[in-house]
Amino acid sequence: MSRNPLAVTMGEPAGVGPELIGLSWLALRTGTPCPFYCLADPDFLAARLDAAGVPVPVLTIDCPSEAHAAFGDGIPVMRLASRVRSAKAGDPSTDDAPAVLEAIERAVADVVDGRACGVVTAPVQKETLYDAGFAFPGHTEFLGELARRRGLDAYPVMMIASDELRVVPVTVHVPITDVSRLLTEDLIVETSRIVARELTAKFGVATPRLAIAGLNPHAGEGGRIGTEDRDVVAPAVAALVAEGIDARGPQAADTLFHASARRGYDAAICMYHDQALIPIKTIAFDDAVNVTLGLPFVRTSPDHGTALSLAGTGKANPSSFVAAIRMAWRMAARP
Amino acid sequence: MSRNPLAVTMGEPAGVGPELIGLSWLALRTGTPCPFYCLADPDFLAARLDAAGVPVPVLTIDCPSEAHAAFGDGIPVMRLASRVRSAKAGDPSTDDAPAVLEAIERAVADVVDGRACGVVTAPVQKETLYDAGFAFPGHTEFLGELARRRGLDAYPVMMIASDELRVVPVTVHVPITDVSRLLTEDLIVETSRIVARELTAKFGVATPRLAIAGLNPHAGEGGRIGTEDRDVVAPAVAALVAEGIDARGPQAADTLFHASARRGYDAAICMYHDQALIPIKTIAFDDAVNVTLGLPFVRTSPDHGTALSLAGTGKANPSSFVAAIRMAWRMAARP
Repeated sequence: MSRNPLAVTMGEPAGVGPELIGLSWLALRTGTPCPFYCLADPDFLAARLDAAGVPVPVLTIDCPSEAHAAFGDGIPVMRLASRVRSAKAGDPSTDDAPAVLEAIERAVADVVDGRACGVVTAPVQKETLYDAGFAFPGHTEFLGELARRRGLDAYPVMMIASDELRVVPVTVHVPITDVSRLLTEDLIVETSRIVARELTAKFGVATPRLAIAGLNPHAGEGGRIGTEDRDVVAPAVAALVAEGIDARGPQAADTLFHASARRGYDAAICMYHDQALIPIKTIAFDDAVNVTLGLPFVRTSPDHGTALSLAGTGKANPSSFVAAIRMAWRMAARP
Repeated sequence: MSRNPLAVTMGEPAGVGPELIGLSWLALRTGTPCPFYCLADPDFLAARLDAAGVPVPVLTIDCPSEAHAAFGDGIPVMRLASRVRSAKAGDPSTDDAPAVLEAIERAVADVVDGRACGVVTAPVQKETLYDAGFAFPGHTEFLGELARRRGLDAYPVMMIASDELRVVPVTVHVPITDVSRLLTEDLIVETSRIVARELTAKFGVATPRLAIAGLNPHAGEGGRIGTEDRDVVAPAVAALVAEGIDARGPQAADTLFHASARRGYDAAICMYHDQALIPIKTIAFDDAVNVTLGLPFVRTSPDHGTALSLAGTGKANPSSFVAAIRMAWRMAARP
């Protein structure tokens, strides 16, 4: 096999990431091949899998290209320079921030330098990284910065995707009362442009159809329920259409996500976090995948956090992690 | 049969209401008995059903108590004093506002005076009623006023319900940017109290479990994403718990509506329109029912509008109307 493997980061060692990597390997070692290697401390990973009752061999490799051959026998691991020092399951420590960050940095280097075909990240514990001096709002912004440090363009856009629905929140982790102020025509247009471009480049959708959700109930009823849909969203849709993008809206958000409505578009552009996340987590709670568009490489992650209370039990559900690996593999296969 | 029949209002004559009443009769005339009569202009109703290709006899009755005997043979209709004068399918006229309003007023009189067991309303065209001097934001507020005119307490609360989920928006048809200002601890508490009381009285839930959604993403993350969840929603939940109501929250809205989460509560109290309407219309688009709680009688309606573009075609989907009638009948059966 000539294609590069996927690079999977270890994530927060005190969270469920390490054992989900093991459970995902169990799910993926047979069937459609989807080889990955992990950027981790192999001794820690082996010990955690053993303690969590996830019987998966950990195989240290020296180069990502060895991952294909090793994958049938265990999880291929590229050893980090930083050891995992303090991690107890469920109890994150800033001592381990260097290992967490090194895994992400090296995954980006591998994919940018052509040793990996995409990056799948295990969840991190942001608060722990902040305490260690991490200066980014989250994982995604850090990946954008790592790309820019390599001289590459990056405008990260979060998409949550399942087999049935793809949603993109234009504003994300902001109070609902700030959404109107933050929502601009430019932001909607730029986000939608990236989504349209990446649906073609990474998902193989020749002519992407975008459904643009309205901000207010009933998409504002022509200005009777708020003015943003008329004054901000509608002009953004018009600008997209003028560029030749098949964008329709503003559409009432409540009637946009049932099964027959979903067949009418390839992605829904939503104005705020819960408008996007409620429908996809309602219908695809276990297997929704977080996809970062707008990076110069493929990046996915599971649509959940570190789940500290489950860490070490071996009982976390690997569905989203498995789906994230499979989706990254399919996306990376596009020319 | 000694139980009173349901009173069904005609709704906007230019909309799909009249033919949905015919289609609902076809669906309900056999099987579990669920008798209703319609408050309408019988000549208009018969002509519309005929034109729409819905072959249902219209039988004029003189008293609601005659509905049971008549229901097997056709739609029992109590004749309104106001005729439908101008209605063309798809083209509402203020000329018909008196008939629309009379149907609602008489339905309330019938249920308050013990001639009907509940009210099911067909959709109205609010703009047409406004033009005729109607001074209420909508159907529900008018019903509340009609109850108060009879000396009865009314605090109408909108619930949307299906077999799988019940949701209640605390704020409804307001711009998203006004939600934070309108959302008070008192409003959340009073709404939730009514929901808890009515779940017992009208749905037979002995000990209602309420899930209280957070306003902001991730329910505010302890104040990091907006302060309302910490300062308004959480105190409301505490106040409800202090009253002995099983209320839990604020809960992150995005993870509140998948199948296994839904099994944890009897109703979700949502902070704004789309937070409530997105999940239920995503999973139960065709058969969600609008239920008004807090009225001194049972009232349901289909969860859709007048669908003017479909009016007269006979092609509107009666699922929600049928579900509304069935739900009202079940609710009215409680002692």
